[in-house]
Amino acid sequence: MKLYHSPASPYVRKVMVSALHLGLAEGIERIAASPSPVKPDPVLSAQNPLGKLPAAVLSDGTLLVGSRTICEYLAAQGSDPTWLPAPGPARWAVLELHDLGDGILDAALVARYETFVRPEAFRWADWVSGQMLKIDTALARLDSMTDRLQGQLNLGNVTVGCALGYLDFRFAHHDWRTANPRLAAWWADFDQIPVMAQTRPA
Amino acid sequence: MKLYHSPASPYVRKVMVSALHLGLAEGIERIAASPSPVKPDPVLSAQNPLGKLPAAVLSDGTLLVGSRTICEYLAAQGSDPTWLPAPGPARWAVLELHDLGDGILDAALVARYETFVRPEAFRWADWVSGQMLKIDTALARLDSMTDRLQGQLNLGNVTVGCALGYLDFRFAHHDWRTANPRLAAWWADFDQIPVMAQTRPA
Repeated sequence: MKLYHSPASPYVRKVMVSALHLGLAEGIERIAASPSPVKPDPVLSAQNPLGKLPAAVLSDGTLLVGSRTICEYLAAQGSDPTWLPAPGPARWAVLELHDLGDGILDAALVARYETFVRPEAFRWADWVSGQMLKIDTALARLDSMTDRLQGQLNLGNVTVGCALGYLDFRFAHHDWRTANPRLAAWWADFDQIPVMAQTRPA
Repeated sequence: MKLYHSPASPYVRKVMVSALHLGLAEGIERIAASPSPVKPDPVLSAQNPLGKLPAAVLSDGTLLVGSRTICEYLAAQGSDPTWLPAPGPARWAVLELHDLGDGILDAALVARYETFVRPEAFRWADWVSGQMLKIDTALARLDSMTDRLQGQLNLGNVTVGCALGYLDFRFAHHDWRTANPRLAAWWADFDQIPVMAQTRPA
């Protein structure tokens, strides 16, 4: 599998944690890419017409777009049925965590584009506030369900971890820990797990 | 299942087409919501902390966020194994179409927020151009693979249909048909299928 990759992308991190956990990392050929919404990477766009990371191309030419699909593909190649359980309550529970983590990332990326890609004259404070509110509301929900984050690694708790790691990386000024002490305590430990420590953003 | 719903949302449409096709629509209690990124809907946000549509709540309280997860849940309740095939090449092929359709929708929504939500003084033309380029590049890819869109309804071709229907609904001024005649011909027929005609945006 060819994987279009950037070490700073939290979605790529999810894919790499999945591959490491499932013992599939050696079968992945990484291709560096660094697209922006206003400056596409032509090598990446030739494969993924949406121009986004991560994207993967299988040996039969099938294109996998986005971390959700790539992680699902990896789960199907691996041998840990708890990573992403088969359809049923256990899967919906893992996906609930996954989707909350991914939603935090989506909002964080939107806020970052506003402050680091868009020229200053065109920035709109309400837009960033709206995204930060989504992040804070979702963090509060996760703080109320930290018991669900415990236990074996799976695509749910790892995605939440990648989201918190991204906040630490790009939003270090945003103190989310004071309001969410249980989540902060969980993350202090989870951040040290080898597959998380090995994939910290650079 | 409670579904937070808006008749104008193309992601909600995917969910409703899935439910109608799978014979599950009668089991869905629709709750109207109309959030914006800068003006959350408090009823929706109390359930989905990310404040976005669609969201669903199962009878055991599990939250399903986003059309991908909700459609996957519905597929598991239904009895059409080709709607979203089990892991294997057929699934990755359906998801390839799904993700291209969803990516077109994601870019179209970003472009629409820029032109209909953001105050005029803060709009950035390069941002919209970047999103429209993603849309056009993905449409060209789909035009080259219309043979893959034929055949039975599945989550892949329906998502592409919801994306094209959204372009017709909100971007009627953007002529994508001239450059993509095979895709346009496919859509002219697909748009008439009862589950698509029943769910046209209003």
